[in-house]
Parts: sequence; C-alpha cells; structure tokens
Amino acid sequence: MLKTNTKKSPYKQLCKEAKEAALYQSALRLLEWDQETHMPKEGLSLRALQNQTLQEKVHKLKTSSRHAKLLEALRKEKNLSFEEKVCLREWERDYSQTKNLSLSFVKKMADTTTHALAAWKEAKKNRSFKTFAPHLKKIVSLLQKKADLLGYKEHPYDALLDLFEPGMTTREIDPLFTTLKGRTNALLKKIAQKTSSTKELQGPFPINAQKEICHDVVERMGLPKERYNLAETAHPFCLGLSPDDIRLTTHYYEDNFLKGFLAAIHEAGHGLYEAGFPKEHFGTPLAEAASFGIHESQSRIWETCIAHAKPFWQFYFPKCQKAFPQALASLSQEEFYRSINLVKPSLIRIFADEVTYNLHIILRYELEKDLISGALSVDDIPELWESKMQESLGIKPAHDGEGCLQDIHWSLGYMGYFPSYTLGNLYAGTLFAFLQKTYPDWQKRVAAGDFLFIKEFLEEHIHKHGRAYRPVELIEKATKEPFSSEPYLKYLEEKYPL
Amino acid sequence: MLKTNTKKSPYKQLCKEAKEAALYQSALRLLEWDQETHMPKEGLSLRALQNQTLQEKVHKLKTSSRHAKLLEALRKEKNLSFEEKVCLREWERDYSQTKNLSLSFVKKMADTTTHALAAWKEAKKNRSFKTFAPHLKKIVSLLQKKADLLGYKEHPYDALLDLFEPGMTTREIDPLFTTLKGRTNALLKKIAQKTSSTKELQGPFPINAQKEICHDVVERMGLPKERYNLAETAHPFCLGLSPDDIRLTTHYYEDNFLKGFLAAIHEAGHGLYEAGFPKEHFGTPLAEAASFGIHESQSRIWETCIAHAKPFWQFYFPKCQKAFPQALASLSQEEFYRSINLVKPSLIRIFADEVTYNLHIILRYELEKDLISGALSVDDIPELWESKMQESLGIKPAHDGEGCLQDIHWSLGYMGYFPSYTLGNLYAGTLFAFLQKTYPDWQKRVAAGDFLFIKEFLEEHIHKHGRAYRPVELIEKATKEPFSSEPYLKYLEEKYPL
Repeated sequence: MLKTNTKKSPYKQLCKEAKEAALYQSALRLLEWDQETHMPKEGLSLRALQNQTLQEKVHKLKTSSRHAKLLEALRKEKNLSFEEKVCLREWERDYSQTKNLSLSFVKKMADTTTHALAAWKEAKKNRSFKTFAPHLKKIVSLLQKKADLLGYKEHPYDALLDLFEPGMTTREIDPLFTTLKGRTNALLKKIAQKTSSTKELQGPFPINAQKEICHDVVERMGLPKERYNLAETAHPFCLGLSPDDIRLTTHYYEDNFLKGFLAAIHEAGHGLYEAGFPKEHFGTPLAEAASFGIHESQSRIWETCIAHAKPFWQFYFPKCQKAFPQALASLSQEEFYRSINLVKPSLIRIFADEVTYNLHIILRYELEKDLISGALSVDDIPELWESKMQESLGIKPAHDGEGCLQDIHWSLGYMGYFPSYTLGNLYAGTLFAFLQKTYPDWQKRVAAGDFLFIKEFLEEHIHKHGRAYRPVELIEKATKEPFSSEPYLKYLEEKYPL
Repeated sequence: MLKTNTKKSPYKQLCKEAKEAALYQSALRLLEWDQETHMPKEGLSLRALQNQTLQEKVHKLKTSSRHAKLLEALRKEKNLSFEEKVCLREWERDYSQTKNLSLSFVKKMADTTTHALAAWKEAKKNRSFKTFAPHLKKIVSLLQKKADLLGYKEHPYDALLDLFEPGMTTREIDPLFTTLKGRTNALLKKIAQKTSSTKELQGPFPINAQKEICHDVVERMGLPKERYNLAETAHPFCLGLSPDDIRLTTHYYEDNFLKGFLAAIHEAGHGLYEAGFPKEHFGTPLAEAASFGIHESQSRIWETCIAHAKPFWQFYFPKCQKAFPQALASLSQEEFYRSINLVKPSLIRIFADEVTYNLHIILRYELEKDLISGALSVDDIPELWESKMQESLGIKPAHDGEGCLQDIHWSLGYMGYFPSYTLGNLYAGTLFAFLQKTYPDWQKRVAAGDFLFIKEFLEEHIHKHGRAYRPVELIEKATKEPFSSEPYLKYLEEKYPL
C-alpha cells in the first residue's frame, strides 16, 4: 500500500518530490559551475564523489516505487488541469526513460566514456583517430543498445534524438537538412563570387574593459545584476541554478575582445531562458527547457540574428571604440561589421560562421545516423569525414585532429545531440522573422540600445511555457505557421552576400 | 533487527556512513562559500532551501536508528584500535549532542535567530541596544534551555563552552583569564609609558598587486596552488571542502594592503589545518578539527606570532616595497614594523592589536557567563559593557553600535564561542614557544622566506591528529608540558614595549 499523505493530492506530492530533486540538481549544477571556474585542480577527486552521491540521491527520488505509485494515482485522476496534464506527461516520459536504462547500463556507459574521454584527448593531441577507434566502437555499440532499450518506431537514431529533441525523428530532420544543405551550398557560391577584403582585429583589449562591456551587454539584454554571475572559464557555458541565480561564463583574450563578448551574449541568451521560467513551478516540467534545440535557439537568436546585425553595432561599436581606443580607433563601423560577418569555409565547427556552421552539423548527423544503424563502421569515419568535408565545404583536414577528432561529444557518448545545434538555428531564424514582423521598428530600437523588447518577446513566446509543448509545437504556437527551414534560409539569403 | 552488511564491521559501516554525510557537508560548505563570494543577491531564497534540504539529509544520516545501532555494536566490540576508539568516542559525543537537542528545539532556535539577526542589524545601524534586547532575551532563555538539554556538571555555561571547546569548563578558564587580564593590564601600563609615534599607511595599493602578494604568501606558507582558491568577500573566512580543496577569502582595500594581506595569512593558517588532515580518514573525526580554539591557534600563530615578527618583514617588506613602490618607498622597515605592532586600547574587537584583543574577549566571557547563569539581565548589558570597557581598557563607547552591539555572534545564538578566540591565542603562544625551542634558527629561516618548516611542525603536532585528543591534551602532547597562559604572556612581555 502506498503511504500517501491523505491531505495532499498525488499532483501536490509529486510537485513536492520534484522540488526536492530539483534542489539537489541545482546543488549539482553549482558543483559543476564551480568545477569549471574556481575549484583548485586537486579538488577533483572529492568533487567526483560529491557528484556521485548527489546524483544517486536524485536517481532514487525519481525512480522510487513511491514515485511510480504517485504517477499511477495521478494518471487515474479525472479533470486534470493543463498544468497537471503537462507534468504527468513529462514525468512519465522521464520515468520511463530512467527506468528503461538499467543502473548497470548507465554505469557501463559512464565507465566506457571515462576511458573514451581520456583516449580522445590523447588521440586528438596525437592527431590520429586510430587509438580512439576501439573506444568509439564500444560507445557506438552501447548507444545501439541504448536505442533498443529506449525504443523507437522507425530508425534507431530516433531514440537518441528524442533525448535531446523530444519527438524529433530522422523522418522530419532529413528533408529539413536536405533543403538547408542545398540552399546553403548555392548561397556559398554566391558569396564566393563576391570576394571582399576584411580587416582582422588586433589588440590590445584590456581584460578589465572587456569584463565591463560584457556585464553591460548582459544587463542590457535583460538579466539584472542581482540575478546572474559572470565568471571565467576555458569553454563558456551557462547554468541556471534557479530563475534567480544564473551562472554565465565567458573567456577573455587580450588580442580579441569579440570572442568573449559574443560568448557572453550567447550564454546570456541561454541564461535569459532559464531566468524566464515561471518561478512558482520551480522543479517541475513547467519550469524546464523544452529541448536542447530550443535552448540553443535562445542563445543563437541573440548571438547571430541580433549581435551580428548592423543596428546592434550602431549602438555597440561606438561604445567598444571608447572601451578599446587603441585597438578600434582606426576601424570603421562598416569594416568592423564586414569582418565579423565574414563567411569562409573552415575546418573547425566551433569557429565556423553562421552560414557554413550548419554544414558541419549535417556532416556529423549523416555519420551518426549511419553509425547507429550499422551502415557505417567506425574505422571508415576519417575517410568519409574527409570526402564529406570536400564535398560540402570544398576543404580537407590535414589530420584527424582538425577533422573527426575535433569535438568532445562522441567521447562522452553523445550522439543525437549535434542536430540540436542546427535545429536551434532554424528555430532562432523562425523566431527572428516573427520578431521582425511583430516589431517592424526593431532596428531602430536595437540601434538605440533598447533590447528589452526582445527579451520580453522571447519570454512571452518561449520561456514561460517550459516543457509544456514539444519544440516544433512551441515554435508553431508562437508563429502560427507550420515550422520549416524557410524563414532561417531567407534570413541568410537576404543578409548574404554582404 | 539491524540489517547490517555481514561482511563489514560496524566500524567500517560507520566510516562509510560518515563519509557520505561528509560529502553532503562538503557540498554545504561550497554552497556557503559561494553565497559569500559569487552568488547573485536574488539567489538567496533558493540557497536557503538548498541548505535546508542538504542539512536535513545530513541530520537524518547522523540520527538514524541504524546509526545508533551501529554505534552500539561498535561499543560492544573488543580490542578496538586507537583510531576506532577515537571515532567511537567522538561519534557518541556527536550523536548524544544531536539527540539531546530535539528537532523542534533546533527549529525554534533557528527561527529566533533569523529574527534576531535582522533586529541586530537594524539596532546596530541605529546604535541602540533597546530594540535588540527583547530578541537577545529570547536567545538567552533558549541557550539556558540548551545548556539544560546538553547537560553540565558545575556551571550551565560549561555546556555551551563544550560545543566549541570540548572538555573546557569555566573552572579551567577562570584562572587562565584572571592571570591573563592582570598581566595584560600591567603590560599595557608599561607600553603606555613608552609612547612612540608611528606612521599610518597610505595608498595607493593597486588591487592586482595585492592579489599577487597574497597568493605569494599563501603558497609560501605551504598551500600549493592546486589545492586552494582565494576569493574576495566582505568578511574573510576559510572553508575546507576537503584537504585538497581549501577555500580562502580575503578583502582588498585600495588604501590599505595590510588588512587583506594579514587576512589572507590568517585564513591560510586555518586552511593549512584543514589541508593537513589525513586524507584517508576523510569524513571521520580523525580528519576533523579538535576545537574552535585549536583552529584559531592555527590562524593566529601565523597571523600574529609570525607575520607580526621582524624576521617575517625582513623578507616581505622589500617585496612589498617592490609591489607598492608609490605607497611604501618612503617608509623604513623599522617604521613599518612599529606601525603594524602599535598597541593602543580601542573600542572594536576585530580591529584590536594582539595585546588588547584578549581583554575584549574576557569582557564578553564575563558577560556571557552571567547571562547564562541568570546573574545578569539582558537590559543591564549596555551599562555593564561601558563600565567594564572603562575598567579594562580605560575607554568608553560613545554608543551601543561601537559597544555591545558590535559583534554578530549573540544574534546568531553563539555564546561560549568568544573564549575560543583567546584560547586560540594561548594555544598559539604555547606552540610558538615550542617552535622556537625546536628551531632555534627560526628567525634566520623566516627572514630567508622559508616558512615550510612551520607548516610541517604544525602538521606534525596538530593537523594530523584531527579530533583524536581534547584541545588541551593535544597541546600538552606536543609540548610535553602542562598547559598554561605562561608561554603566551612571556611572548607578549618579551615583545612589548617595542
């Protein structure tokens, strides 16, 4: 018999439980943030134990028989409110995902990726895929098992996709990406015909001035200083401990302020999403992200659509010139705008411009899909990588380090994740088109330094809904149009060639 | 029936449990550190809930019937090793303390101090004790109850003292403090007769240079950079997450580098203690502090005995002159030494020099003892404070803000804590005398920038023993002499007047 609190409905009890789990998860996020920003190196072994202990606690809360029985009780209730229905649906999704993956499977995966990560680092340093291949084989085979455990209708890759982008399938992605690839290639040809020279940034960009301008833009975007912290890290990220405690990170380089500035904007976009969740639903699916792709759309709309647009720099370029007189005094706003929007095929995904970026993702998507289906063998990756890079970007890596070994994701066991980056761009483009329609004077506002209407627009259409809708549904609910790659492609095709 | 793991001894099971609790406690310390250093202001309400959740988890682990039964099983075992005996003794001590204080009592105290803290802040700002008095009355009455719940032999204050300084009683402290008071007063008269003029420090002390020299001294003291972090905070403190992850904090003032520098040294002294606990015993009493006083002795021996001594500045003054040429170029080492060792009665405890400091503590001790016994009423505190200040230091506060309202401790429900500061000084003085005897060339070494032998000396005699011995026992085991105030008084009397 279930010992339930007779005074409280199953929903209220589940909310209480979810909130408790969320408090532990929020502490876990602080541990993670601290690990990347302030933890001394030798603190790592204790940190690993702390993480394990707290994760086990969360796992217990989310898989207890009490939890299962409460879910069953809620399922039997009639006249559920909208909120209750959403929570039930998402809790059941989470529960079955967790239950389907046995603890022994999870441990095996963790053990495998621990070794794979070390092997990947070594292989990347040595620029040779060979020593990483045996580890990746194990991971692929575990991921195939994972797909079976989680279940799927058509393609095993769908099971993995669903973990990052609920409801998304290869059947939906294939045509989206095919269109995107074709039109991007056509656009690249146009851009290549119109060669323009750009000036490269040169320092010095004093770190203190960089910090100041990063805080300035984050706060102008709508994160008040009482609700965020901006720390330094090698690889920028954002974690929301709660809507009121957003941890942003960025990096500063003396010779290039743009990297840190754009990273701060990108992470603040993520941060605004987390800050926009309805506080009263903290811990429940109503205050969680709809998907990785939606999360990415919130950072990319700011980073690319806004912070690479002319009006943004009408406002910020004079400010930057003031902040970095030595470095920027001799540059015109137009030269600066052209240099930051330079489109040029390159080997490394994370340094790619907004046009070529998606081709990097599509390449990975094609490989992953075939690896998981068994159509592609791990040993054939380097060769296929080369030929696909040649085909889609017209360039070839000189070695695996700048080819198939460049990303950390596979060594961590993440396949099905990369598509979210491009889906994020497509969502962002769609939202941006809708924003432009909603605010025909957006350029004037942005050029005057008014960014708050963008935050409010995103809050209204995306943030406040949490996980209430599936990603595509959420976008369609906002725009009242069927989702496609069209708005995003139009955005690119109208902008380029410059 | 107790479901014990038949393969594991009760001791091993208790160690495992203790380690789990320690991992949560260590996460709690990170939450605390973060709250004071990086957390955005609005993060507070979530932080309070996180703390509560994790604290309840620790409380459950430490008071479960399983825990009690394991303790009982361990108690029945024969031929316990030294380590097992220590752990059993300290676990039983912790268990009975926690059990004696009911959860409802703890909650009442927490609730009372939450309000008292707010009232204290307000009262301090308004410089008037009256509005704080009703809160303090509640706290005193709860502390009297606490003493009863915890139990004592002679004086109810002993029960509170024991929480900070295990085994210490008013019967032991009274004669120590009486001697200390008398000889300090005599010394102050001598010092007053020999008036010497000192130069006040004037800036600028650029913050970056301050940071550099703080890191330099912390690492020279023996904390390698892989094992600590030094952050900024208003009120410096130190927390050890593990022996390998020490969190120090300090503050920097543009017009006075000494405050931040000495605070860093003080906190690093605490940090070295935590870093010196035997790692293999993490989570057990063998890797915990012997008492608040012993902890304080580890910071004070560095801050006062070492970092206020001539040889220390023979090494550091030239370095500081290099770091702060504008501020220190015109000052001689001797002038500097005299200025930082100026002894002068003052109103505020935390700014007091090393001679008058203990008189501030003794005053508080006398008041607290009588408040707890009921001999003194809360309403009479301001008047008594004034007359006692007049009597012991010859000065009088102009208002309660610089008198009986200056410290936060009472508003937090801490009585019995202050004596640990002076006991820390007495332990430090005793250890310092022993250090000088052990290393007759200590001055030469320190003047050459060699501080590691001090760290190793303290590690050997104090750190590595954890809670294995009671404070006084620990000191006596090191020095092989009965503990008294003599070595500390001699240290002061030989140093002053300058």
